[in-house]
Amino acid sequence: MRSLTFTALQGIPEIEPGMALDGVLAEALARNEIKLLDRDVLVLCQKIVSKAENRYVDLRTVEPGERALELAAKCYKDPRFVELVLRESTSVIRCVKDVLIVRHRLGFVVANAAIDQSNIPGAEHRALLLPLDPDASAERLRRSLHERFGVNVAVLVSDSFGRPWRLGVCGTCIGCAGLKPLLDMRGKHDRFGRTLKVTQIAAADEIVAGATFVMGEADEGRPVVVVSGVPEPYFSEPESARALIRPGEQDLFT
Amino acid sequence: MRSLTFTALQGIPEIEPGMALDGVLAEALARNEIKLLDRDVLVLCQKIVSKAENRYVDLRTVEPGERALELAAKCYKDPRFVELVLRESTSVIRCVKDVLIVRHRLGFVVANAAIDQSNIPGAEHRALLLPLDPDASAERLRRSLHERFGVNVAVLVSDSFGRPWRLGVCGTCIGCAGLKPLLDMRGKHDRFGRTLKVTQIAAADEIVAGATFVMGEADEGRPVVVVSGVPEPYFSEPESARALIRPGEQDLFT
Repeated sequence: MRSLTFTALQGIPEIEPGMALDGVLAEALARNEIKLLDRDVLVLCQKIVSKAENRYVDLRTVEPGERALELAAKCYKDPRFVELVLRESTSVIRCVKDVLIVRHRLGFVVANAAIDQSNIPGAEHRALLLPLDPDASAERLRRSLHERFGVNVAVLVSDSFGRPWRLGVCGTCIGCAGLKPLLDMRGKHDRFGRTLKVTQIAAADEIVAGATFVMGEADEGRPVVVVSGVPEPYFSEPESARALIRPGEQDLFT
Repeated sequence: MRSLTFTALQGIPEIEPGMALDGVLAEALARNEIKLLDRDVLVLCQKIVSKAENRYVDLRTVEPGERALELAAKCYKDPRFVELVLRESTSVIRCVKDVLIVRHRLGFVVANAAIDQSNIPGAEHRALLLPLDPDASAERLRRSLHERFGVNVAVLVSDSFGRPWRLGVCGTCIGCAGLKPLLDMRGKHDRFGRTLKVTQIAAADEIVAGATFVMGEADEGRPVVVVSGVPEPYFSEPESARALIRPGEQDLFT
């Protein structure tokens, strides 16, 4: 690999529930005069996928349970919001003032179950959950782009996650189709013939992090980035972003 | 920002202690026919910085202390290696079979104090420590490139870190000059006028992650990546990669 280019699509409209993302992308690609090629990687911010899939919840319809009330008192969050977080999670990892970190039903550890209230219309009453199955969303889009344009691309779904010990959020891969999310180097050797100790590269997270930087933040609204130059061996049959999740028995921090 | 390009420099030689990295870079840029421009960002793998600064330690000269022997028995690592890790660290975060996670003297939490034994010649007896002060290394190189080429670039030093809860290592920024490592969004509003809750973007980590993907791994040896297209507001007077480190009082995981 010599060079990798990340290009944000300009002018993606506000996504409404039910909109077909493949159509939105086709229009945006045409408007940006970008022709998709085999082995391009599309990175989509989860927010537009969630909006298209109508993962909105009206907080006024949410009845917080006992556990949500208890946790809400600890983290000073809206109990209805906490109830939603619990419904999207398999366990609570940390709950202190202003912080609620959980293991999401999709496997990763994330604050607030990655439920979002920024950049959504009517946010005082609305929250936006992650897509039901971001791998499946990515795969549907990958197939549909193949049908439309005859190209074999990969599709990644991104979100911005906080990290323990480091400040600032960083783009992270939560859905994956057509790319190996994790590159396995086990048994390979370094340039001096020594067996590598570091054995797995979080390829999809690295690509998504770069793409997230190009997306920009907040009011900028560039939720789709086309990545060109990813070498052939990274591509594969659909795999799951779950490959990036450390198995529970290796977890030293919960 | 519309587009970001990451280009790896080909043909960087094995770096020997005492080699001047600015000269190595100047040659590599010429050979790759790349002309540095204002606001390019150079990302350097820590390994070449450490090698140039002769941060090699001969393990045969290391006498493990009592604490090193005790920890080595727990993590099944060479006690001399553990002694080096302790000397580079301010505290031990986790120590179990095959895993030794510490807070590095530079502030971040990392396995083995980021001491490396892969891709270094004579590794059975040698270990390579991180640069003494990666921010200062980056700043020296930034100034020297300014003198040589009359351009204002930023320089980042990268390393591949593991993460709790996620598999695979991911490029992380450990040294920074000329760029804002952390973009502060506090008080800004989203597209619908709502105050943003996520307030800080780990810009340098996102750029470094993308660059690390382009560097490739192991035997490939592309330790320098030129990033073009980073928007002007990200540039700044020298700041420290320490800005990316979460203050201890916010730490929920050690």
